[in-house]
Amino acid sequence: MDTADLRINPDRLRADFDDLSAIGATAEGGVTRLALSNEDLEARAWFANRIEDAGLVLRDDAIGNTSGILVMTQSAADPSFLVGSHLDSSLNSGRFDGAVGICAGLECLRTIREAGLRLPVNLEVISFTDQEGAWQSMLGSRGLTGRLGDLTAHRDAETIGAFRAALFRTGIIVNDLHEMYQAARPPEQVAGYLELHIEQGSRLYRSGKRLASVDGVVGRTTYLITFLGEASHSGTTDFDMRRDALRGAAAFITEAHDTIYLDFPGGMFNCGKIKVEPGVFNTIPAKAAVLCEVRHADEATLMTMEQHLLALAGRYAGRYNLDVQDKRVQHMPAAEMSPRIMQAISDACAGLCLPSPEVLTSYAGHDAQILAPFTETGMIFIPSINGISHNPNEDSRWEDVVLGANVLLHALIRAAGGSL
Amino acid sequence: MDTADLRINPDRLRADFDDLSAIGATAEGGVTRLALSNEDLEARAWFANRIEDAGLVLRDDAIGNTSGILVMTQSAADPSFLVGSHLDSSLNSGRFDGAVGICAGLECLRTIREAGLRLPVNLEVISFTDQEGAWQSMLGSRGLTGRLGDLTAHRDAETIGAFRAALFRTGIIVNDLHEMYQAARPPEQVAGYLELHIEQGSRLYRSGKRLASVDGVVGRTTYLITFLGEASHSGTTDFDMRRDALRGAAAFITEAHDTIYLDFPGGMFNCGKIKVEPGVFNTIPAKAAVLCEVRHADEATLMTMEQHLLALAGRYAGRYNLDVQDKRVQHMPAAEMSPRIMQAISDACAGLCLPSPEVLTSYAGHDAQILAPFTETGMIFIPSINGISHNPNEDSRWEDVVLGANVLLHALIRAAGGSL
Repeated sequence: MDTADLRINPDRLRADFDDLSAIGATAEGGVTRLALSNEDLEARAWFANRIEDAGLVLRDDAIGNTSGILVMTQSAADPSFLVGSHLDSSLNSGRFDGAVGICAGLECLRTIREAGLRLPVNLEVISFTDQEGAWQSMLGSRGLTGRLGDLTAHRDAETIGAFRAALFRTGIIVNDLHEMYQAARPPEQVAGYLELHIEQGSRLYRSGKRLASVDGVVGRTTYLITFLGEASHSGTTDFDMRRDALRGAAAFITEAHDTIYLDFPGGMFNCGKIKVEPGVFNTIPAKAAVLCEVRHADEATLMTMEQHLLALAGRYAGRYNLDVQDKRVQHMPAAEMSPRIMQAISDACAGLCLPSPEVLTSYAGHDAQILAPFTETGMIFIPSINGISHNPNEDSRWEDVVLGANVLLHALIRAAGGSL
Repeated sequence: MDTADLRINPDRLRADFDDLSAIGATAEGGVTRLALSNEDLEARAWFANRIEDAGLVLRDDAIGNTSGILVMTQSAADPSFLVGSHLDSSLNSGRFDGAVGICAGLECLRTIREAGLRLPVNLEVISFTDQEGAWQSMLGSRGLTGRLGDLTAHRDAETIGAFRAALFRTGIIVNDLHEMYQAARPPEQVAGYLELHIEQGSRLYRSGKRLASVDGVVGRTTYLITFLGEASHSGTTDFDMRRDALRGAAAFITEAHDTIYLDFPGGMFNCGKIKVEPGVFNTIPAKAAVLCEVRHADEATLMTMEQHLLALAGRYAGRYNLDVQDKRVQHMPAAEMSPRIMQAISDACAGLCLPSPEVLTSYAGHDAQILAPFTETGMIFIPSINGISHNPNEDSRWEDVVLGANVLLHALIRAAGGSL
């Protein structure tokens, strides 16, 4: 068979996808596979079995990334071109996020193996640990690229203790967190990275297009902004004596949404959590801790947004006679995809007689963002129905998943130096 | 000794107050004695011992109110004039709230007993169960006055189960909640009610006055207002697709504070708690449940405020494409104090050569508000330093506590039909 006619097996892909969807399935039709949870462990075990069934070489690294190598060279220890995504999910999330990339990556390697195709570099399908950040966002890809940083920074002792316990329980570490630094690979050991993922937004779905090549991933910074007032009786405290932490936080959240939308085109703001203390109906809140994030594709603009946000928090703290503390919990820098890999995706589409892919910037964080400064990286998006994601109703048309998997197959062969 | 010269024993009062402050003492210098907790039980046991030490007849009713009767008539079962407050506190609250009224009431009965004073009615110092509402606000006074209502209304099964377990554990009920209805007394069994309390606001403290007679207690209504949106990825969801429940809740809270202050003079609004789901930094909140309350001294205005608040919630739900649900969790009607008891307080001040008491409306809820429609009721306020309450820093000058206790003594003797 001519390599140009090579296609993945959609039934086998579907069977894998359905098997994986059943792990951590929720009543609402979604999945919960928080990193290092029992469900995540079950998914890893399932994936390891599928890897071995596919005749690939199973690899577990020091940070819990699970991968399967299709050996093309002398040894499985030679450099490999990575393809993959993540098995973990956020709470009661969708079945497609991460899973599509894992199942399609595995199916690509099976297809290439069965076709007996020879390539100049090993191929490796990989699932990265904790992409979603149940513990630390993109832990696995940061570990593999040697960008782990200080694992205990910005975390309290209790959280670090629970994290250590979870890593110990899952067998990733035996004694201490530093063992995970051994997952770092030399850059020359990685030939490139390709990831197929759902868009998670509605741009493709609304446009009627079926596929996009990603040109970059937005940077994201997460803040914990804590407003501090004074607990006092809600009925008796005079208006000029009230130091209501939640009032300040609510005004901040309201204004932050408006100002980021109006003043920073292309910017995103989310406040996903707020914790109020003491949290009693008849006591003025003494403390309101706001967990929020900003995103922008341009690093410099992102910095400006951050400064703007902190100034806003300070202004509302002043207005309501509060103190305010901020903690920069995490920063994921914006990243650009490799022109060579983007070209491979375009060529794959052309070779499959498909229209040229849309070119989109990703507003979601991905492991590809961590891999991009480390190795030549590309991403393929397929549409999310109504743009819904991180939700049990997350959905994609199955024919788009199959299309995405075939483009992934051909882009991977091209990017890994194969001829078509 | 002339009855007009009768005074409470300040050292004995102080010793009781210090003993009680040590029960449930917190590191910050406050107390936590949540109703039906171990600390509350310890306080009840302490109070029962003090009652018996004082030579009073101990009484425990079916809803856990603890009282001590100074018998003046044929029998302890004859009608009594009540004086008291509550032993329970809210979380990490102050030492004075409730405790002042309990210790002063006990000291008044000891003083009257030692003086051998004869009155036409029994006196009864009483601590009411769960005034603060750890389970159900003013449970004990509502039980005694036969205004318990449906104890399971507006509560979920889990909360009711925990409440039942706590009541069972404390020995208040043996089998079911309905046993507590037996605490209801016929109105003719209660001759009146007097309560000494800290103001919990700063009006007295700022004015430099040392004492007030309360003319009424504000009505209060508590709502659980739940904004319902849709969980979705915080980075990828288009602006016009976002259904951010917390954004709606934050705008509602901000506007509710402003509008209640501007449009309803004398009205109070508090939002003490908000619960966000799923509560993840990178997911748009699907649910934000807001626990809030409004207070006003006028029942009709309170109703208008409530309608205004619900309309506001509806407006913001509409603006941000959310659904909204509201639950009227609790309503405590506004209450007026008895002119006869207020006169007794004024006469007591005159008899003690003190200035006429200030006349204030209470913005805090009190058991007196529940007793008022049932029996002739009055309340005495002493200043709270800086108006701080429901806070470990809650404080009152000790000389004001002693002054309040002496006014309570003389007002009680007059209100209970004694001659001075």
